[in-house]
Amino acid sequence: MKRNIYLKKKTLEEAKAASLLLANLVCLEAERIPVARSLGRVIAEPLFARISSPPFHCAAMDGIAVKAEKTYGATEESPKILLIAKDTFFVNTGNPIPKETDAVIMIEDVHLIDPERVEIREAAYPWQHVRSAGEDVIATEMVFPENHKITAYDLGALLASGYQEVKVKKKPRVLILPTGSELLEPDESWFSRPDARPGVIESNSYVLSGLIIEDGGIPIRHPIVRDDRNEIEKALLSSCEGADLILIIAGSSAGSEDYTRSVIEELGEVLIHGVSMMPGKPTLIGKFKERPIIGIPGYPISAIISYEELVRPILKRSLHLVNPERQKIKAFPTRKIPSKLGTEEFLRVKIGSVGGKFFVTPLPRGSGMITSLTRADGIVRIPTLSEGLDENEEIEVELLKPVQEILNTVVMVGSHDLTLDILANTLGRFYPPIFLSSHHVGSLGGILAIKNGICHMAGVHLFDPDTGEYNFPYIRQYLKGIDLRVIHLVNREQGLIIQQGNPKKIEGLGDLLRKDVSFINRQKGSGTRILLDHTLKTLSIESDQIKGYGKEEYTHMAVASTVASGIADAGLGILSAARALGLEFVPVCTESYDLIIPSVHFEDEKVQRLIETVRSEEFKKTVLQMGGYEVSRTGEELT
Amino acid sequence: MKRNIYLKKKTLEEAKAASLLLANLVCLEAERIPVARSLGRVIAEPLFARISSPPFHCAAMDGIAVKAEKTYGATEESPKILLIAKDTFFVNTGNPIPKETDAVIMIEDVHLIDPERVEIREAAYPWQHVRSAGEDVIATEMVFPENHKITAYDLGALLASGYQEVKVKKKPRVLILPTGSELLEPDESWFSRPDARPGVIESNSYVLSGLIIEDGGIPIRHPIVRDDRNEIEKALLSSCEGADLILIIAGSSAGSEDYTRSVIEELGEVLIHGVSMMPGKPTLIGKFKERPIIGIPGYPISAIISYEELVRPILKRSLHLVNPERQKIKAFPTRKIPSKLGTEEFLRVKIGSVGGKFFVTPLPRGSGMITSLTRADGIVRIPTLSEGLDENEEIEVELLKPVQEILNTVVMVGSHDLTLDILANTLGRFYPPIFLSSHHVGSLGGILAIKNGICHMAGVHLFDPDTGEYNFPYIRQYLKGIDLRVIHLVNREQGLIIQQGNPKKIEGLGDLLRKDVSFINRQKGSGTRILLDHTLKTLSIESDQIKGYGKEEYTHMAVASTVASGIADAGLGILSAARALGLEFVPVCTESYDLIIPSVHFEDEKVQRLIETVRSEEFKKTVLQMGGYEVSRTGEELT
Repeated sequence: MKRNIYLKKKTLEEAKAASLLLANLVCLEAERIPVARSLGRVIAEPLFARISSPPFHCAAMDGIAVKAEKTYGATEESPKILLIAKDTFFVNTGNPIPKETDAVIMIEDVHLIDPERVEIREAAYPWQHVRSAGEDVIATEMVFPENHKITAYDLGALLASGYQEVKVKKKPRVLILPTGSELLEPDESWFSRPDARPGVIESNSYVLSGLIIEDGGIPIRHPIVRDDRNEIEKALLSSCEGADLILIIAGSSAGSEDYTRSVIEELGEVLIHGVSMMPGKPTLIGKFKERPIIGIPGYPISAIISYEELVRPILKRSLHLVNPERQKIKAFPTRKIPSKLGTEEFLRVKIGSVGGKFFVTPLPRGSGMITSLTRADGIVRIPTLSEGLDENEEIEVELLKPVQEILNTVVMVGSHDLTLDILANTLGRFYPPIFLSSHHVGSLGGILAIKNGICHMAGVHLFDPDTGEYNFPYIRQYLKGIDLRVIHLVNREQGLIIQQGNPKKIEGLGDLLRKDVSFINRQKGSGTRILLDHTLKTLSIESDQIKGYGKEEYTHMAVASTVASGIADAGLGILSAARALGLEFVPVCTESYDLIIPSVHFEDEKVQRLIETVRSEEFKKTVLQMGGYEVSRTGEELT
Repeated sequence: MKRNIYLKKKTLEEAKAASLLLANLVCLEAERIPVARSLGRVIAEPLFARISSPPFHCAAMDGIAVKAEKTYGATEESPKILLIAKDTFFVNTGNPIPKETDAVIMIEDVHLIDPERVEIREAAYPWQHVRSAGEDVIATEMVFPENHKITAYDLGALLASGYQEVKVKKKPRVLILPTGSELLEPDESWFSRPDARPGVIESNSYVLSGLIIEDGGIPIRHPIVRDDRNEIEKALLSSCEGADLILIIAGSSAGSEDYTRSVIEELGEVLIHGVSMMPGKPTLIGKFKERPIIGIPGYPISAIISYEELVRPILKRSLHLVNPERQKIKAFPTRKIPSKLGTEEFLRVKIGSVGGKFFVTPLPRGSGMITSLTRADGIVRIPTLSEGLDENEEIEVELLKPVQEILNTVVMVGSHDLTLDILANTLGRFYPPIFLSSHHVGSLGGILAIKNGICHMAGVHLFDPDTGEYNFPYIRQYLKGIDLRVIHLVNREQGLIIQQGNPKKIEGLGDLLRKDVSFINRQKGSGTRILLDHTLKTLSIESDQIKGYGKEEYTHMAVASTVASGIADAGLGILSAARALGLEFVPVCTESYDLIIPSVHFEDEKVQRLIETVRSEEFKKTVLQMGGYEVSRTGEELT
């Protein structure tokens, strides 16, 4: 069993320099295509106008064309009469003016006497209201230099300069070779074919194809290749011919079945293996048959970052286009974010615009989490020589979404609830759409976020054992002095989520003490955890007697999923989460889930739209359909 | 002859509101398409994950899968031995872990004893290095809300959530009807078919098609329709069926053959006719067969502004996408720019980044000038209630190009010369490309721009009659105290540009006094004008005796074009301009064209690249091929 050992890891800067050098291997030929289909293409040679525009002297106004000399002397007192079709000719804007004329008089200033004669009361000067030939483009002038990317506007200039076809660079062709014995083509996954083997759906090649199309290239996807050295070699050799650039996905890390490096080492040249960035470390850069070849890591986020940092520049360079930069804004982290020294980290973040400042909250950092990128609003680059970000440090964020969208987002922090998805979907129906960004850090986390001014509202369900009251005791204790409004969202049922068919016959919290029952807990500070701890106390159950009490999840769905997959036998959560995954449910209690909104944000239009939505019959109806909810007071303001 | 009279003109805001309301008429159906082809499409219904991702517990590292319990007690001192294929199983990243295991030990920490046994020296804890099922996406969770636009990243999340097909909104179909009897299809213009009638090439529909594609719609171009009421009516009625939205180009202004309004009035409803914006005033907004119809003005820039302000919002609204905003920067006008009160003007500008500030210079304002948009870096909106921009007023500019491109542009102001096109094209070959933005305001204008600090260099050829010297006397007089460098560009021949075959037998400046000879002049402050005036003085010719002396053009090519089109018989200009248009040339003198560069910009990298290019043999060779130039000292620094 031979394993790869990384070549000396290179910095991202070194890797970028190497991949840009490799770009010189890509030489794109030119091709001639119709102007009408040339949008976004890159001009291969400087274009000089073949004709002038306008091609002749033409009327700039609707009116009559005249020889100016013939109008001299015309005034209000002594008008002049001109003969139609002899001295003067009707013209509309854009019409060529007859050869014998050199001026246009506006139709408003022309008095028709009879079908043969008009009268004018003011003289025209030569070339008045005439667009002279070549006013816009003069034949032989350079219209566009080579390497110019054709915009929609440019189509007009090209046609007006006499081009029906244009010579552009061919699009770079990128061969994508996904490797991995565990991979399934999307149409052979087991849920579409019950007889199929279990595996992971190959999606990286489709994501990369999308990015390549956006970057002006042509993706050529090869079917999945098994982790077999010969097959990888065969696939590479048989498919590389038509490609300008090769991406081989996975197989470049340290696993026993990672053959990418050895194949390239034997048939080409490995220049770099291992880049000090995260995600994306196992990237490989090399040459294969005089083409650049990039070994792209197999984790989705690694694959994307590796592509964007090291492959996109090659494509852009080959087309001679500037590598695009994302729009950047200044923002503040909502908490300290440590990062590994010596590695450039690409942190995916949610961005909230609250009280005139932008705040960033990190999303999960695992490179296997595609949703950490699809849900992200931006990316923070943590430099190699940094140990992370401080809470009050102003940082730069690269935007993945238009800033308007971020400004139109209600930021909610606190407890997780499934009705928030419904709320988000419904808010999106306004136009312009309102977005809801909800961060599930538990009810106490929500209270803290209100205190720190980093959200528009908090979703909380905090039971106070002393008073038996929900939420208000906590508001009084932690948010003293902050002017607030409280809107009731739902009452919901909490209970034990247990496996289908209840194989372990769990009937209540007491069963958690059993040796054969394992539990999955919620994180400290979540309302559900507080509820659990309070109820256990009431029942005099010691938490350290519960197997799995120490393992925490952050959402109801994560708890349900942990139970569904057999990692745990039971967890405390809401009925709708159990239903969503077809699990069983043993009710424990009903609780009030409320929205705490600082008064400063209450009149904010998007917050008002949210409250309006919560109060709508449609919202309540959809919530009831999920089960486990009670909406009789939904939308009411609590005091 | 019936003419249109505008309905009471509306403000742009009123017109926008009306067109947004009309957007409600556009109801896009949903269609099911493969995920692989869904990039950029808009999701028609909220999507809930069909499977979890990962779909099973899988290895997060390459190594061995074990049941954690079986490793308890292993230490450096007392290692544990595990049996391969019984206690433990080799797994690579992404592989499902066998049902009986719950942890992965990294391959680096595994010691292979023989093909049947491995040794470990540290215990594993449960679920270490395991990605649990649903870590990324949990089945039934909402993956995307409706109205979400699919990015390349999203393709990965969709496939991983079990989607092979996705329900998206159909693209809005936009019927484009170009009208105008003077129009020619691109392939029927007279230079491709010598027998064709002269006319204007129809290009608006292609520009609009490009914009519609970029905005997510499908353009359906109807062939050109003549200015004939019946034909327009027929075309509309026969083609509107499959369209969600109709654009009818031209025919909505006040001309005698403008039928757009009357057709819509009769068969539909005109809501607005005339919008107080410039360009774009004659826009019409109405309904036709329960669809929005927009009468788009015929001038290219009017058509584009009208589309972007009033049609794009309808398309975006129908797809429920946010109307995009361009990036904005703060800048300063290089001079006072008056604008008409009561009209919102869209001024196209060049932007220069000089000395840490952005400066804007307006491009020609005529709505017929497509190059005023293809050459523009940005657009300045001058509000309805403004009479224009002041020279030192900070204004907002909407960018049409990435700001990087503007930052990488050498700003040159001064005299026009044809070698500047060659220079621009050659600079563009650097990577990242360097851009050259040259403003032709004459040599004195260049000197003034240096004085005002709004350019990196000035191109001048100013003859001083007192000393017989070029440029330096002017520098001494006007740029005292500014540290400068002067690089010689070319020597070039100036002379009279005259018509082919020299029909008027013009042989020198003396012939300009003839009654039958008309002249076209250059603007005051241009080096050519100064040269002319000086030479006339030497020859004792009175300029007011020259017919056409008062009519000015701004570039050599414009002078040549004026002669070529017969408006004038002669003009003073450079040989290369005469050659470009196949005109004749009577030499008058040779002059030195130099680049004046403030020392503060001299070491700027892009300026250095420009000087390097000027000094290259390739540049000199290309210049010599144009004729009329002498390059023996090209690139030399003059003192």
